[in-house]
Amino acid sequence: MMSKEEERVSGNLIYRGRILNLRVDNVRLPDGGKSMREVVEHAPAVGIVAEAGNGDLLLVRQFRYPAGESLLEIPAGIVEPGESALETAMRELQEETGYSAREMEEICRFYTSPGFSNEIIILFHARGLVPSPKECDPDEFLDLVRISSDQARELAVSGKIRDSKTLTAVYWYLSRK
Amino acid sequence: MMSKEEERVSGNLIYRGRILNLRVDNVRLPDGGKSMREVVEHAPAVGIVAEAGNGDLLLVRQFRYPAGESLLEIPAGIVEPGESALETAMRELQEETGYSAREMEEICRFYTSPGFSNEIIILFHARGLVPSPKECDPDEFLDLVRISSDQARELAVSGKIRDSKTLTAVYWYLSRK
Repeated sequence: MMSKEEERVSGNLIYRGRILNLRVDNVRLPDGGKSMREVVEHAPAVGIVAEAGNGDLLLVRQFRYPAGESLLEIPAGIVEPGESALETAMRELQEETGYSAREMEEICRFYTSPGFSNEIIILFHARGLVPSPKECDPDEFLDLVRISSDQARELAVSGKIRDSKTLTAVYWYLSRK
Repeated sequence: MMSKEEERVSGNLIYRGRILNLRVDNVRLPDGGKSMREVVEHAPAVGIVAEAGNGDLLLVRQFRYPAGESLLEIPAGIVEPGESALETAMRELQEETGYSAREMEEICRFYTSPGFSNEIIILFHARGLVPSPKECDPDEFLDLVRISSDQARELAVSGKIRDSKTLTAVYWYLSRK
């Protein structure tokens, strides 16, 4: 069977930045033809399905500059150098919601935009939440929003949740009921 | 209440490319402080929950260069200039699966990575599939995969689906049963 893989022939690093790099590679296609691929390199990130009492979920609302609007999202953040994904999940949950979790279990891992980026999100399920002091990033401004699972379904179905990882998280959560 | 929005002060277009542009903006934060935002501009895309007979789903497996691996995904593609999202969904379904749909209904819209990109995906539900000639993009190589809804659940839960839009699509689909 013919390999379906694409092979890197050459490439240029266009930009090295704070949260991402941009690379443009020339590739050999499976049929021997040539093409180019634009690749946004991004560190892994975590997202947290934060289950509070009564099966409620903790979400955060924040302005997202690239989107140009405020979005309702699960708590999330980038894995910093030297951190495990689990450590990031514990830290981000505390920073963004003011809670820490007695249980933090990995659900799944996924690419957010595999057509142009290597970013993956590691999704966690946090349970046994206990109040814990909060320290936000200095350039993050967000509101904590607590919703029931019925509200989560309504917000997803009505189009009020417009973030991919959050839709995955909410529908995953609802599929378990 | 203090506005939570961030305001553009100045910016540079770093790269103008084939499927994306990269912009770096200086912004004013809600508290008056300054920061910078790296923004990957990307055209809207569509994804299609393609429901065949017996509630089966049509997926495609393709090598994704940025991810460096083959992924199982719903049919998807970029909205071309002059096209409506609905037209893109009809075209991509035909190109990638060899089927056209009698019914194509919008489910929802979401950002794939709102922390660094404006890319949105418009998710459609395709029903009433009928075989139709197939014309693939010359630099796309993909395999069609037909699965039952039980298989879809198993592939999602076991971590074999590793694409965000596809997980959203599958869990949305399962949540309706």
